[in-house]
Amino acid sequence: MSQIKPRIFKGARDFLPEQMLHRERILDVMRKVFKKYGFSPIETPAIEYLNVLAGKYGEDADRLIYKLNYKTGTKDEAALHYDLTVPFSRVVAMNPDLVLPFKRYQIQPVWRADRPQPHQGRFREFYQCDVDAVGSKSMLIDAEMVAITYEVLKELGFKDFLIKINNRKILNGITQYAGLSADMTQEVCRSIDKLDKMPWSEVQKELEEKEIQSDAIDKLGGLLTQELDLDNLSQTLTDISIAQEGIRETQALFSYLDQLGVDSQNYTFDLSLARGLDYYTGPIFETKLPNQPHIGSLTGGGRYDQLIGMFAGRDLPSVGTTLGLDRIFTAMQQLEMLEPLMTSTKVLVLVFSDEEMPHSIRLASKLREAGIETEIYPEATALKKQFNYANKKNIPFVAILGEEEIRKDKVTLKDFRTGKQATLDFSEVIEQVKKNA
Amino acid sequence: MSQIKPRIFKGARDFLPEQMLHRERILDVMRKVFKKYGFSPIETPAIEYLNVLAGKYGEDADRLIYKLNYKTGTKDEAALHYDLTVPFSRVVAMNPDLVLPFKRYQIQPVWRADRPQPHQGRFREFYQCDVDAVGSKSMLIDAEMVAITYEVLKELGFKDFLIKINNRKILNGITQYAGLSADMTQEVCRSIDKLDKMPWSEVQKELEEKEIQSDAIDKLGGLLTQELDLDNLSQTLTDISIAQEGIRETQALFSYLDQLGVDSQNYTFDLSLARGLDYYTGPIFETKLPNQPHIGSLTGGGRYDQLIGMFAGRDLPSVGTTLGLDRIFTAMQQLEMLEPLMTSTKVLVLVFSDEEMPHSIRLASKLREAGIETEIYPEATALKKQFNYANKKNIPFVAILGEEEIRKDKVTLKDFRTGKQATLDFSEVIEQVKKNA
Repeated sequence: MSQIKPRIFKGARDFLPEQMLHRERILDVMRKVFKKYGFSPIETPAIEYLNVLAGKYGEDADRLIYKLNYKTGTKDEAALHYDLTVPFSRVVAMNPDLVLPFKRYQIQPVWRADRPQPHQGRFREFYQCDVDAVGSKSMLIDAEMVAITYEVLKELGFKDFLIKINNRKILNGITQYAGLSADMTQEVCRSIDKLDKMPWSEVQKELEEKEIQSDAIDKLGGLLTQELDLDNLSQTLTDISIAQEGIRETQALFSYLDQLGVDSQNYTFDLSLARGLDYYTGPIFETKLPNQPHIGSLTGGGRYDQLIGMFAGRDLPSVGTTLGLDRIFTAMQQLEMLEPLMTSTKVLVLVFSDEEMPHSIRLASKLREAGIETEIYPEATALKKQFNYANKKNIPFVAILGEEEIRKDKVTLKDFRTGKQATLDFSEVIEQVKKNA
Repeated sequence: MSQIKPRIFKGARDFLPEQMLHRERILDVMRKVFKKYGFSPIETPAIEYLNVLAGKYGEDADRLIYKLNYKTGTKDEAALHYDLTVPFSRVVAMNPDLVLPFKRYQIQPVWRADRPQPHQGRFREFYQCDVDAVGSKSMLIDAEMVAITYEVLKELGFKDFLIKINNRKILNGITQYAGLSADMTQEVCRSIDKLDKMPWSEVQKELEEKEIQSDAIDKLGGLLTQELDLDNLSQTLTDISIAQEGIRETQALFSYLDQLGVDSQNYTFDLSLARGLDYYTGPIFETKLPNQPHIGSLTGGGRYDQLIGMFAGRDLPSVGTTLGLDRIFTAMQQLEMLEPLMTSTKVLVLVFSDEEMPHSIRLASKLREAGIETEIYPEATALKKQFNYANKKNIPFVAILGEEEIRKDKVTLKDFRTGKQATLDFSEVIEQVKKNA
């Protein structure tokens, strides 16, 4: 075998146990909450035909699709999926018998042939955790997206998070209110969306550069620089029917959130939330940590009533959200919400000698039977080496089974964090470990 | 957006909830057992530099590596990983500070540019579930691999499975016993490995075609066509030291299995087990369903003391096993071990009217708070349509909250499988659902 210097692909990451144990727990929490709201898992292959993916994300994104060296230039050319929404749309289109509303979640890596910026959390391979429901226009499902976001973050231990909520119909309405034509909404939204990172004066400058009339910009500024609640906004936009529809949807969504028990401290209407993607048609939402503005959105989503229908050739209103595993993990690290973990092992059983090894193995088996994650040092080497292993791996307990313990049918259990040790019956060992590990 | 006929990549699969719910459960069982034995998760990216992968699997396999259309022909050419062993070797090589023994599991898809044969379970994208330990020569770890296999299959409900165990050193020994040179072992092993699919007469023919001397073939046949236990074999091969070493290893492994509480009904020594891969150096094991010979091996693995060391440039004895998620799932389907599941939802709360909807939502929230997976039909449509939804999705319970129930603070709960319904207090609903769902 040739001796090649081992290198990892640029923009990709290895996850060692100290990261993976936490990532698995975060995903477990997500899956549990998704299921509690009636969402079921699906998976699609990483490889899709290129013509299924291309032309769905816009030109800039199309360039970021990783192509395989496979039947290049033919209709069978293949690529790695860029997100999970388009593959999901393909599944819906190929399965016309799906019972609607179809509520699915999907947790898989996606790939982007981007310039990696690890310090800003931008990688070429990363996980998306998507929850989407197809086949209902009810604002209750939009509210469930917000409730799921709320419950996942609460259960992970986040406190000061804020789910910002807006509606594309309201944004359409304010474009109209400013005297601009409907096809300007996207352009305007893209600038407005930057208001969480820059002051109005800079957004104003950007809008001027887009050659939008100054009286229109003034009207937009008038709305965006004051704290407007839905009632005020409704009065201001009283003649604009698309805005009224958006406001009614938002009011319905908010009353559902109340009935679902979502704490009103954790969500708010925010007229300046616009979100980049073109395909949103109704409510949009995004989660920020107001005290950690440098960490981007933890989650984001919205209603997209046209996208899947276009793919499937029938009317399929949809709403969904993405939870960012990497962002959530990074935020939890920075907020010191994660205890250092090298392993999930609770007990290391030491081995004194080859003769005593069978006793140690039987003890390990009994601990495992009791549901306790247990390792046994695989060789009867120097005890110091075995202790060192437990220490370096942060294993909380060491079980010692020497000649005397074996004779008396006892086990000496040492708590590595306190340094305390005691010679105990087997049942006491189980109790101690379950209580303190 | 262009209207492309939606197609799935040839040899790849979509998994809908009816498959995914079971696949997730199988993976949960694996993770739990892996952790119980002290193994910790890692993940590596799907994309690796081609020169990290190439030349590790042999020429035939190298052709099956999917290459990306990325810096083709340079040292940065990239590809999709073909298995998880070589990426794991790269991780070990790049992390010289890993605490040894390093016990890891890794569950990810792998890709093979193969001719897909879905009916034989051969796909271009499929999951591998690998457990490996690096840094110990102790047979206890080999025994743990067998114990983990045993425990996973037991917990999933398999009964008649058989873990076949052999040792490459014994196979080396019988080649020597037959009077063949050591470098013939691979060739001989590849033929012997077919003994579970064809009779000795055909394997004999194959060995003749490989131009192996007939007296050597006779000597091999003499060993392989009788039921030899380890003691008989030890006597027959008494002068062959490599065989004696293999026999001692197997005896140690078997006594560890006994101490670990593995039922001896579920494993056996099998001299005809050889396994294809060249890199095994000690114990090898493979799980079959003797009553379902058409289903291939559910698991397979062995000790490979050279592979990772070669990669890392130091001595790193290793042993590992792969559990085949697809094979296990297919076997469970064929043995009717899986109940049909469309969703994990236990209760569908019906919605009578827009006015009563808030009550239905609050009920759903309370059920979710009690940990019960609950859906609420998102619109106040015809009740028949809502019942239909529960029926088609196999949701076991429907909760009905009409005007009268609301007034009396009760819930009518219908068990969809028995057709029985009763009007109950909320606490009784929880109890009923938890007991019977």
